[in-house]
Amino acid sequence: MNASEFRRRGKEMVDYVADYLEGIEGRQVFPDVDPGYLRPLIPTTAPQEPETFEAIIEDIEKIIMPGVTHWHSPYFFAYFPTASSYPAMLADMLCGAIGCIGFSWAASPACTELETVMMDWLGKMLQLPEAFLAGEAGEGGGVIQGTASEATLVALLAARTKVTRHLQAASPELTQAAIMEKLVAYASDQAHSSVEKAGLIGGVRLKAIPSDGKFAMRASALQEALERDKAAGLIPFFVSSPGPTRVSGPCHKEGLWLHVDAAYAGSAFICPEFRHLLNGVEFADSFNFNPHKWLLVNFDCSAMWVKKRTDLTGAFRLDPVYLRHSHQDSGLITDYRHWQLPLGRRFRSLKMWFVFRMYGVKGLQAYIRKHVQLSHAFEALVRQDTRFEICAEVILGLVCFRLKGSNKLNEALLESINSAKKIHLVPCSLRDRFVLRFAICSRTVELAHVQLAWEHIQEMAATVLRAQGEEKAGKPPCGAEFPPP
Amino acid sequence: MNASEFRRRGKEMVDYVADYLEGIEGRQVFPDVDPGYLRPLIPTTAPQEPETFEAIIEDIEKIIMPGVTHWHSPYFFAYFPTASSYPAMLADMLCGAIGCIGFSWAASPACTELETVMMDWLGKMLQLPEAFLAGEAGEGGGVIQGTASEATLVALLAARTKVTRHLQAASPELTQAAIMEKLVAYASDQAHSSVEKAGLIGGVRLKAIPSDGKFAMRASALQEALERDKAAGLIPFFVSSPGPTRVSGPCHKEGLWLHVDAAYAGSAFICPEFRHLLNGVEFADSFNFNPHKWLLVNFDCSAMWVKKRTDLTGAFRLDPVYLRHSHQDSGLITDYRHWQLPLGRRFRSLKMWFVFRMYGVKGLQAYIRKHVQLSHAFEALVRQDTRFEICAEVILGLVCFRLKGSNKLNEALLESINSAKKIHLVPCSLRDRFVLRFAICSRTVELAHVQLAWEHIQEMAATVLRAQGEEKAGKPPCGAEFPPP
Repeated sequence: MNASEFRRRGKEMVDYVADYLEGIEGRQVFPDVDPGYLRPLIPTTAPQEPETFEAIIEDIEKIIMPGVTHWHSPYFFAYFPTASSYPAMLADMLCGAIGCIGFSWAASPACTELETVMMDWLGKMLQLPEAFLAGEAGEGGGVIQGTASEATLVALLAARTKVTRHLQAASPELTQAAIMEKLVAYASDQAHSSVEKAGLIGGVRLKAIPSDGKFAMRASALQEALERDKAAGLIPFFVSSPGPTRVSGPCHKEGLWLHVDAAYAGSAFICPEFRHLLNGVEFADSFNFNPHKWLLVNFDCSAMWVKKRTDLTGAFRLDPVYLRHSHQDSGLITDYRHWQLPLGRRFRSLKMWFVFRMYGVKGLQAYIRKHVQLSHAFEALVRQDTRFEICAEVILGLVCFRLKGSNKLNEALLESINSAKKIHLVPCSLRDRFVLRFAICSRTVELAHVQLAWEHIQEMAATVLRAQGEEKAGKPPCGAEFPPP
Repeated sequence: MNASEFRRRGKEMVDYVADYLEGIEGRQVFPDVDPGYLRPLIPTTAPQEPETFEAIIEDIEKIIMPGVTHWHSPYFFAYFPTASSYPAMLADMLCGAIGCIGFSWAASPACTELETVMMDWLGKMLQLPEAFLAGEAGEGGGVIQGTASEATLVALLAARTKVTRHLQAASPELTQAAIMEKLVAYASDQAHSSVEKAGLIGGVRLKAIPSDGKFAMRASALQEALERDKAAGLIPFFVSSPGPTRVSGPCHKEGLWLHVDAAYAGSAFICPEFRHLLNGVEFADSFNFNPHKWLLVNFDCSAMWVKKRTDLTGAFRLDPVYLRHSHQDSGLITDYRHWQLPLGRRFRSLKMWFVFRMYGVKGLQAYIRKHVQLSHAFEALVRQDTRFEICAEVILGLVCFRLKGSNKLNEALLESINSAKKIHLVPCSLRDRFVLRFAICSRTVELAHVQLAWEHIQEMAATVLRAQGEEKAGKPPCGAEFPPP
């Protein structure tokens, strides 16, 4: 394909993309396919001769779309939102065309420098403490990671290196393995599995700290665990927490690396009314959230800041000759390969630049506030129905709710909802209770979609409750051939 | 921005992309900017109010392009190629629009299933042993990682878990730390820094094995290191090698995990005449190469295969026991989050699908062969000039060469070439010799570009040699105000 055919096909693809997103409401949000559906639909080997673009485009609707879970449908309320916006897509097109690999400043100065400045812009939007910004002479700064999992792992590895060097400076006879054996990282018992994965990869033990009534790590529980572990000869070194408020005290006092991972919630901190959730971040060593979740920057774009960039570069720096360049020790330049796990990296800051400028801070704030309003609207609907209960305080765009009753009943409700495929939800477990999550996700979701979703949930609930009532009354549930004994 | 504005702006962007790539030869390959150039050119904070698309597009030429290293210029011969093709860019547009996060089968079945089948297609193109393919009931299979660094780390962690469990099964009293302290991984002394990084992250020691005249790990040197380390009570467990040929014997014999990382070279193995470089891969546990380097699939797309998928999922799977189900290991359901470091992942197999179909295997082979021909053409030019020498056998698209003479002389030559900015090269170090690398990179590079590049190098060499001659003769070098003492 040459440039002239790309001009034509690219414009067709732009229309396909616009058609897809304009018409997404009409597509069933969750697919009908069974595992293994795709393999029989396509050849077993790549073609020897080139095929036409038309043939491929045709196959998109025939082969791909029937198996897509439509994350941007306004009836998608599962997991967490993943960002999608037209400005970000335009920026990604440019990113693909420039196609530079920005592992060092010299590998493409614009790629590195725009990232540093965009991370400063975003840090200021969040009112991050000055210490996290790169500025012109700061010791901190931001970096775009692929995912929050990688940010957590990078933070944990930096903390591991720091504490190891510190201990070895005092006691040079200590081996790395002898230290690692005693290191302990902490996270809330409600923490994301990424923290557990980071501990596993980093080869250190991870302890879960009981959470409070709001599912946040309790400071007193953390303090108790620290005392107990220190008394047992262990070495606490790292705490990962979705919010800094409760844990910054103990971390500061004990000199632990505090990593704040607000993967989803972080976007909301650009609104002054939610910024208090980030109070205490001044005591953190690293902070991370995902603009690719809720700030309209398409995946992947996970924003991570550190107070001391040398903590990261000290953990990862390896400088082979072929990657060295003349400016690298000037202090002025940033080689982002030392801030991350991979070597290669795309020009992802273009997406931030396009989105921040085309929405403006006010536009982004309005977007966050609309989603929060929608979740409260859904919460209000649930509260009006006495068969249901709300299971956790609704703060941002997520509502955890369930039918009053057994886990089995709620499992049946979720099963009936996801089988009907009018909307899509996933469950979670809160203190052993099976709970349904209703997350405001799509950029295009409106109050009408939320209301329709709620009516649908109510209908499904009525059916499930009726089946349960009949079962209790000894009648055969619908479809059962024999009454229970 | 709504769909209708996106239709307009998206088409403008398609034209911008086509213009950029059609005109890239006219742009200076390496930018003129100094570190810190960008910050003064843009505001210190994000705008409060939305800006127009026109304002942003204007800034691309004013602010971004002056700082871009043009990796797709036909005068870019630095690092390694990074892939760029129109079909891949079209696929990326679709990937952005669908915007699903394919961490599990259910999160978007098409995203998972197309990836498994595309990795089979690619595995067959490379004539990988059947054991690496997923097929319908295989125990192996492929996964798209972000980079070769991640693939190496994933392989090392899987091997670490496997050997740890094995040893603990025999001696349950052994702690993980006690085992990790003794684990040793091996790589060639010419290996990529990513192996060193993986060892650092995984908390295991890495030993460099001397390479032979062709810069490949010597089997005898590996065998000696293994014997020495075992005698010292250490536990060899992992070998990373760019080619399997020499090391598969010792690895097989000693039961070590062999990871073959052919990041760049791997693409060439789709041509029968280069496939012999992969002989011995049947003894490897994992194999990886980067279609995003040389197979026209835009970054990121690093293809990794394993013989036993449970080796990966066993290392990373964090599903609690009570969630396991009978089909989990059947090969029917793949949850790729257990195969990689991050949780989230994009629909990257679309790029493979578009590229493989629109080029066809023959088109891809022709592309590889053309690049190899160009590197041999450059090699022939170098060999005709007795002032120069070739420093390593030219096998694929990379030519390592230098002026006969000191490292200082060659550093001066590279410096003069990269200051002139007509072409862009980077150096490497081969057995302490400073060597210039000439890598065939751009999709659009032709013999004429290679010839022009060589003429330019010859001119620069003449100047550098003249300066050296004058210096030796006691004359002041050009530009020096005082003769040396």
